[in-house]
Amino acid sequence: MVETIQWTEAGVVMIDQRALPRQEIYVACRDYREVAEAIRAMVIRGAPAIGVAAAMGVALGVAQAYSARLDEEFEEICSTLAGTRPTAVNLFWAIDRMRRVYRSVRERPLEQIRARLVEEAQLMKREDVEVNRAMGRHGATLVPDGKTVLTHCNAGALATAGYGTALGVIRAAVEIGKKIDVFADETRPFLQGARLTAWELQQDGIPTTVITDNMAGHFLRSGRIGCVIVGADRIAANGDVANKIGTYGVAVLAKESGVPFYVAAPVSTLDLSLASGDQIPIEQRNPAEVTQLAGVPITPDGVGVENPAFDVTPHRYVAAIITERGVAIPPYTESLRRLAQARAAV
Amino acid sequence: MVETIQWTEAGVVMIDQRALPRQEIYVACRDYREVAEAIRAMVIRGAPAIGVAAAMGVALGVAQAYSARLDEEFEEICSTLAGTRPTAVNLFWAIDRMRRVYRSVRERPLEQIRARLVEEAQLMKREDVEVNRAMGRHGATLVPDGKTVLTHCNAGALATAGYGTALGVIRAAVEIGKKIDVFADETRPFLQGARLTAWELQQDGIPTTVITDNMAGHFLRSGRIGCVIVGADRIAANGDVANKIGTYGVAVLAKESGVPFYVAAPVSTLDLSLASGDQIPIEQRNPAEVTQLAGVPITPDGVGVENPAFDVTPHRYVAAIITERGVAIPPYTESLRRLAQARAAV
Repeated sequence: MVETIQWTEAGVVMIDQRALPRQEIYVACRDYREVAEAIRAMVIRGAPAIGVAAAMGVALGVAQAYSARLDEEFEEICSTLAGTRPTAVNLFWAIDRMRRVYRSVRERPLEQIRARLVEEAQLMKREDVEVNRAMGRHGATLVPDGKTVLTHCNAGALATAGYGTALGVIRAAVEIGKKIDVFADETRPFLQGARLTAWELQQDGIPTTVITDNMAGHFLRSGRIGCVIVGADRIAANGDVANKIGTYGVAVLAKESGVPFYVAAPVSTLDLSLASGDQIPIEQRNPAEVTQLAGVPITPDGVGVENPAFDVTPHRYVAAIITERGVAIPPYTESLRRLAQARAAV
Repeated sequence: MVETIQWTEAGVVMIDQRALPRQEIYVACRDYREVAEAIRAMVIRGAPAIGVAAAMGVALGVAQAYSARLDEEFEEICSTLAGTRPTAVNLFWAIDRMRRVYRSVRERPLEQIRARLVEEAQLMKREDVEVNRAMGRHGATLVPDGKTVLTHCNAGALATAGYGTALGVIRAAVEIGKKIDVFADETRPFLQGARLTAWELQQDGIPTTVITDNMAGHFLRSGRIGCVIVGADRIAANGDVANKIGTYGVAVLAKESGVPFYVAAPVSTLDLSLASGDQIPIEQRNPAEVTQLAGVPITPDGVGVENPAFDVTPHRYVAAIITERGVAIPPYTESLRRLAQARAAV
């Protein structure tokens, strides 16, 4: 499996997710501004992956900062990285964690500060893979054997430091011997499903079928789908889930057909400071993502376009939220708070 | 407005709907086999439009047939045209109507038979526009003023002989002074919404916004959508509606948000021989429509693909069916039968 993101001598190296699956291109970000731009442009995407990218961006920024005004530069680095994408809370969680480490070592010699931040960013990458494997173990038992799993967007190895959240649960189900196949919504406009999920699962030999987003309801109604599993970009205290645009529609259609809808996300995706999903900021992206495909214009010039990158699925459609610390079920206000307060199991 | 289809000296001329909106190319079908191929390849599409195309194909076939074995050739022409696409019942309705005319004149001199069939095909084209205008008058009163209408696929002038079914209702609502705008689902894989609906409405100066299919739920939940209006390819006796893939999902999401979901279709789209939508054949199309976009491959090679072109929306999601003879409301088994038996109003 390819590495989503790596800390190297040349800088922070990422596989360019805009070019997959046709081309495997690696991009080296040589300063923190390039890391920020890579997050904004979706060279790297997926809530846990952009958390790790931001942490490495902070470490890279401090490695190149002037010692004379380090506190100031540190905040500039953090605010540049935090300004890239508004919805996924893992970005802010990762920056906050780096800030706490920085504060705990800022009186030390510069080289020690730098080394400690690099160490923390690399630890966060390793932890993310462990977290995903734990999530997979908890979630695998929920996956019905002998049926199809429907997923939306890409919540896989490419959306994380490795293994994946939703696709981690699918991988873990396969590892314990369940006979499943996957339907991947293509996920317009960025086509994370058609390009990234299909590619990842194909490499693992897990049978995968790509469908257009508007086919999900038809197949959910057909009886062949055993469950839906998706990732998340932010989960409010009441269990409302912000995730890739279209997730809400899949959740409603799953409920309509009696198919359980599961969300797999690390505890770092919880934002218990928000009472409900109505308060989650929804990123609006460039209309060109909708009006063009692979550089080819598909709409008439001058037509109106909307491009919200995420939607919010109210908690009543969510059968369970799978985390590395266990599976939360309704009422989420209680179950999520308990998980957030629990000692990390990994 | 461009002409979707025309009977000319050079043959049956159609605007190539695969090339719109970037290019306006006209295709001349010089024999009935070319008409059949144009229907199959979606040079022309939309249930009422392919009905007119099939009628003109029959007329063209007979115009070029040998008189010695006319009955045989007539059936060959009809079965070739009927074999192009299985879901839209208007295709079979149009062929049956041409067959009845043929039977009524088959004893006459060949030139009279030919002239009568050309006349009937041209009459069907003119009638279709009148039918759509009547549908528009009936439906316009249902459209909430000052809100957005969501539509899926293209049920416009391009899907008919002119004016449109769903878009005809929208046009009629604008003509009686309602202040509305339109959200058009892009409608993967063929992008009828992004390419055709957006282009048509833009030409009429009706404000139009293109969204990806997976955004429909988000905007239905937002409160800005006043109603959904779509066309239909076949409607069963109980009111179940076969229409472009994704229609079912939009219908469920509309109901979930309390937004009325309307179907606009001529009486020729009713198939009262089928008790429910479960019996409607669903066309499976070429996987390349999903895996490529404008000739650019988007999925990894060798991945599985499904491409059902239609889905069935159970009648319980349909608030009303707008026809040229009036508006049918539940229970549809009664209201549709009454409309089918009513004297044509146009």
